Amino acid sequence: MNTRVAIGTSSFCTKDDTAMKILENAGIEVITNPYGRRLTEEEIMVHLQEVDGLIAGLEPLSKKVLSSASKLKAIARVGIGMDNVDLEAAGGLGIKVSNTPDGPTEAVAEMTIAALLALNRKIITANIDLHSGNWKKSMGIGLKDLKVLIIGYGRIGSRVSSLLRILGAQVMISDPYLNKSQLTDGEILVSLEEGLQKCQVISLHASGTDVILGCEEFSKIQDGIILLNSARGNLVEEQALIKALDNGKIKAAWFDVFWKEPYNGPLAKYEQVLLTPHISTYTRQCRKAMEVAAVNNLLRDLGL
Amino acid sequence: MNTRVAIGTSSFCTKDDTAMKILENAGIEVITNPYGRRLTEEEIMVHLQEVDGLIAGLEPLSKKVLSSASKLKAIARVGIGMDNVDLEAAGGLGIKVSNTPDGPTEAVAEMTIAALLALNRKIITANIDLHSGNWKKSMGIGLKDLKVLIIGYGRIGSRVSSLLRILGAQVMISDPYLNKSQLTDGEILVSLEEGLQKCQVISLHASGTDVILGCEEFSKIQDGIILLNSARGNLVEEQALIKALDNGKIKAAWFDVFWKEPYNGPLAKYEQVLLTPHISTYTRQCRKAMEVAAVNNLLRDLGL
Repeated sequence: MNTRVAIGTSSFCTKDDTAMKILENAGIEVITNPYGRRLTEEEIMVHLQEVDGLIAGLEPLSKKVLSSASKLKAIARVGIGMDNVDLEAAGGLGIKVSNTPDGPTEAVAEMTIAALLALNRKIITANIDLHSGNWKKSMGIGLKDLKVLIIGYGRIGSRVSSLLRILGAQVMISDPYLNKSQLTDGEILVSLEEGLQKCQVISLHASGTDVILGCEEFSKIQDGIILLNSARGNLVEEQALIKALDNGKIKAAWFDVFWKEPYNGPLAKYEQVLLTPHISTYTRQCRKAMEVAAVNNLLRDLGL
Repeated sequence: MNTRVAIGTSSFCTKDDTAMKILENAGIEVITNPYGRRLTEEEIMVHLQEVDGLIAGLEPLSKKVLSSASKLKAIARVGIGMDNVDLEAAGGLGIKVSNTPDGPTEAVAEMTIAALLALNRKIITANIDLHSGNWKKSMGIGLKDLKVLIIGYGRIGSRVSSLLRILGAQVMISDPYLNKSQLTDGEILVSLEEGLQKCQVISLHASGTDVILGCEEFSKIQDGIILLNSARGNLVEEQALIKALDNGKIKAAWFDVFWKEPYNGPLAKYEQVLLTPHISTYTRQCRKAMEVAAVNNLLRDLGL
């Protein structure tokens, strides 16, 4: 009997079929997501019957689901986050689980630069003005010599730092798990406190769910900084952020991640806040890279 | 008697006084622009009486003006364009004229990347949607492997190419004054025809006033390209552009320069066209760099 692989993600290969071709060329029988959306617990239980592997999205892979999937040997997440997978249960059942930690790096770093440039160069308001017939020049800020504090120096933080330095910015890094020797030329390791006091821009690239920026931290920054968040909503305390926007500590911000998604909260009232619906990794190139990586992980874990 | 220098630009040192300090430290008497706007021919004639040098904006420096400025020995433009200076008359009168060709490079290149990223990642519409409470994900396009045609390989075109390649794009260069040996690794020299046929993005960085993109050229491109223009409005034929937007040859565009400025023409009706009011060089860093360069040019030309 053929090896069978179920697809959990609803958008798998909708824009580029490279990953599907790899599965087919390996002689695998592919069972696509029949609903075109995220599967519920019951749906995924049915979907996983008689399959050897799963290309996983964010469907709930609880102990109950995994226990009922008697043939399942491997799960390959298309993405980084694995909150939807009961890793302990998977381990107990001998199901191998992988993710694609490299896939999103370039897309998120690129989007972070895009957001900072859009805010710095006042592109959004200039565009609205000119579409309404108003020719109003407002002086922008370039990246040259701009002091940027990057909080969290994983793959994405490191790539953002590299791009910013190429564009002329001065980059400070704050990361409690880091020592100086792990940095590249031109990057300055700072304590969070020192970074907050000196920066003109903060870009969040930390993992975890603890609040990093709250009232106390915002009280330490200079007036008029820019805050970028492509990491997690919870890293910033929402009410403290609103206060910092109101009192001018933060003059502009970009949020791609929120405390609750879909987001429909108070930030929408702030013109100076650029809002995007968690799309930092949502590019054709990134989807393709993550899908291919997930498929290769799955083939490896299935011993193919 | 002190050397006297008149300031023509209305925004000189309004954001950073570095350039002014250089003049003062050289013992120069500075006569600022008394109107805070571009001077007329009569006003600049008065302004130039008894001065040795001019830090010039875009005020009209005609033969009549220059002939009446009996002590004027040097003009230093803050910027690149010298259309406002009668260079022949200046030459005949022994007045040295300089400009600041390096000043805008970084600012324009940065803005070009900003505009391309904003269009590719659909930042503008995503932001409008989310500010109206609509959480709508639309897949973006990353720069990785994107085929970009750069038309005009001067300082700015070259820097844009460099940044695009760092971000993973494939860059084709079209420039009639160029041979292959002048390119950097990874850049591909193409004819305009070949570039038009293969590209997904066109970025204009040519000089001159001749039309480069008209109906014939747009007929050669694939459907759905992005056009970026930070160079000059006249490089694109306006009616041909409108037609290409209407028939989908061009799916999105950015214009920072226009056929007539302030611009109030038909592009304003096209949501998919990002419009900015000639602000590519309008950053604090760029103004400072150009002001300092102009002052140093002036001091050199005055023999100081």
